[in-house]
Amino acid sequence: MKAFVLGVDAGSTSTRVAVHALDGTRIGYGTAGPGNPTAHGLDNAVAAIGTALEAALSGVDPAQVAASRAGVAGHVPALEEALAKLWAAHGVHVPPRVTGDVTVAFAAGTASPDGSLLLSGTGAVAARIAGFELDTIADGLGWLLGDAGSGFWIGREATKAVVHALDQGEPGGALAAAVVRHFLGEAAGVSGRELALRIVRLVQAEPMRLAAVSALVSAAAAEGDPAAVRVVEEAAERLAATVAVVHRGGPVVLAGSVLTSECPVRRAVLDRLGDQEVAEVATAADGAGAAAWLAARGLLGPGEADAAHAAFVRPVTL
Amino acid sequence: MKAFVLGVDAGSTSTRVAVHALDGTRIGYGTAGPGNPTAHGLDNAVAAIGTALEAALSGVDPAQVAASRAGVAGHVPALEEALAKLWAAHGVHVPPRVTGDVTVAFAAGTASPDGSLLLSGTGAVAARIAGFELDTIADGLGWLLGDAGSGFWIGREATKAVVHALDQGEPGGALAAAVVRHFLGEAAGVSGRELALRIVRLVQAEPMRLAAVSALVSAAAAEGDPAAVRVVEEAAERLAATVAVVHRGGPVVLAGSVLTSECPVRRAVLDRLGDQEVAEVATAADGAGAAAWLAARGLLGPGEADAAHAAFVRPVTL
Repeated sequence: MKAFVLGVDAGSTSTRVAVHALDGTRIGYGTAGPGNPTAHGLDNAVAAIGTALEAALSGVDPAQVAASRAGVAGHVPALEEALAKLWAAHGVHVPPRVTGDVTVAFAAGTASPDGSLLLSGTGAVAARIAGFELDTIADGLGWLLGDAGSGFWIGREATKAVVHALDQGEPGGALAAAVVRHFLGEAAGVSGRELALRIVRLVQAEPMRLAAVSALVSAAAAEGDPAAVRVVEEAAERLAATVAVVHRGGPVVLAGSVLTSECPVRRAVLDRLGDQEVAEVATAADGAGAAAWLAARGLLGPGEADAAHAAFVRPVTL
Repeated sequence: MKAFVLGVDAGSTSTRVAVHALDGTRIGYGTAGPGNPTAHGLDNAVAAIGTALEAALSGVDPAQVAASRAGVAGHVPALEEALAKLWAAHGVHVPPRVTGDVTVAFAAGTASPDGSLLLSGTGAVAARIAGFELDTIADGLGWLLGDAGSGFWIGREATKAVVHALDQGEPGGALAAAVVRHFLGEAAGVSGRELALRIVRLVQAEPMRLAAVSALVSAAAAEGDPAAVRVVEEAAERLAATVAVVHRGGPVVLAGSVLTSECPVRRAVLDRLGDQEVAEVATAADGAGAAAWLAARGLLGPGEADAAHAAFVRPVTL
């Protein structure tokens, strides 16, 4: 009997590939840059997945891979075919099952077949998972019109509040000081209006810089800065509302950089999920391990699969 | 004595040049495309101003121009010099006084030396004018972080509300139907989620398309659509708050496409200015005529200038 399963978690920031034995023991692991074919182009995504795959298969007999699953953020029609060719080129005989990253992120937090995912990273999305498959999705509508409560959204709301206050000559608190320092460094002797205009120019030239402000909001909110606390509360409110649209019971898995670190937004979301009487909340751990576990499920009995879950994904507790 | 004055109103949408006799009689007029050097480049802005200038001077002896004023949205350091050369090339002996467009827009609504401007077009800004000069400014901070209550802002807030409702499967009203038709035409048999995703894709590729949604909001609000009414009320609230930052008495001049047509946002702003006990509200008329009037003021006595204002700017009543 073939011994290994292979899992891929390809996202907008990085790509991870894991090879596991069926009992969950990790055999190989590789990482690479962004692997989202919609955001970065099919060729770039396939190249990144190939780099991580090669590293993960180092010292592993690829003919021993019995099943694999690739969870890929973004989708283009030619993706399945391109990954099948890539697998064959690396000596893996069975092509991967290719799905979105949402089911993989859910499995990275729980072995349950049903429940909900709430993800807040650069973007924000909620999904209902039924029988390990994607059932319903909410938000994930991009930074311009959606992704409410995401890192980008938090950074934008905070920066809007800061430039508005600077423009109106209001005294700034810890958040305003941190945002000014972040964008402009030391800027003594400059009017609030001029500070606002300088930040606006930088952000208009490169809007994605707003996502990095999210970390400043967390720090300022932890210190009790009222403007930062308002943004955190509003973000948590939006995220809780998004997951409420899809949730029909089972665990809620929290995923994405905003919800998998011990920060004020995560705590405020946990409070709201408590108010919504969500019985079980889990935190997503390693997506590549989760993808490997989903591949292994078809080869194991349900009891065996459940027992091995923790070995595959190495659950986190915060 | 030289007989004519020349006024320029160069904005992000169009450029207008007017030649007037000192009693306000219009002698020549020309228009051209965008004349904002920050947004469109110095060369393009100067070319547009040149086109409008040439048309305005057609049949006019340029040596008879005694003074001119150019109100230009956006500013680059070389603008004054470039316009002085342009004037000389057209046979106008005196170079124009070059200022921003804000003082010109204020004079397009009133002959008063002091008061406030509230402008909402594609962008939104408020300014206090003192002795015909710019004193203080608020907002105008661009579409990404500011311009609260502008046409772009209204279109974005409305489109956000519509895609959010579509995504969550809520029944859409008149606004949702109009926004879907605007972006997608007839789209029968498509899920709300898919409609939302299609609109998001179009808007992410070309964010400025959101400004055109503003007109749909006005129409839907006039029909009583609750989502549209909410956006209109919020826009008016923001605009009234922006002008309140700068206002210290005198008339408030309303300018820009959102505030110079008989639409729900204008009416809601007028209500709020009434609540703020603003004694006099005027509407900006022709900016090129106002720029010519500002040029004429230096040549006329104050009483004469005031008496001629209406002939220069042709006031509007809505």
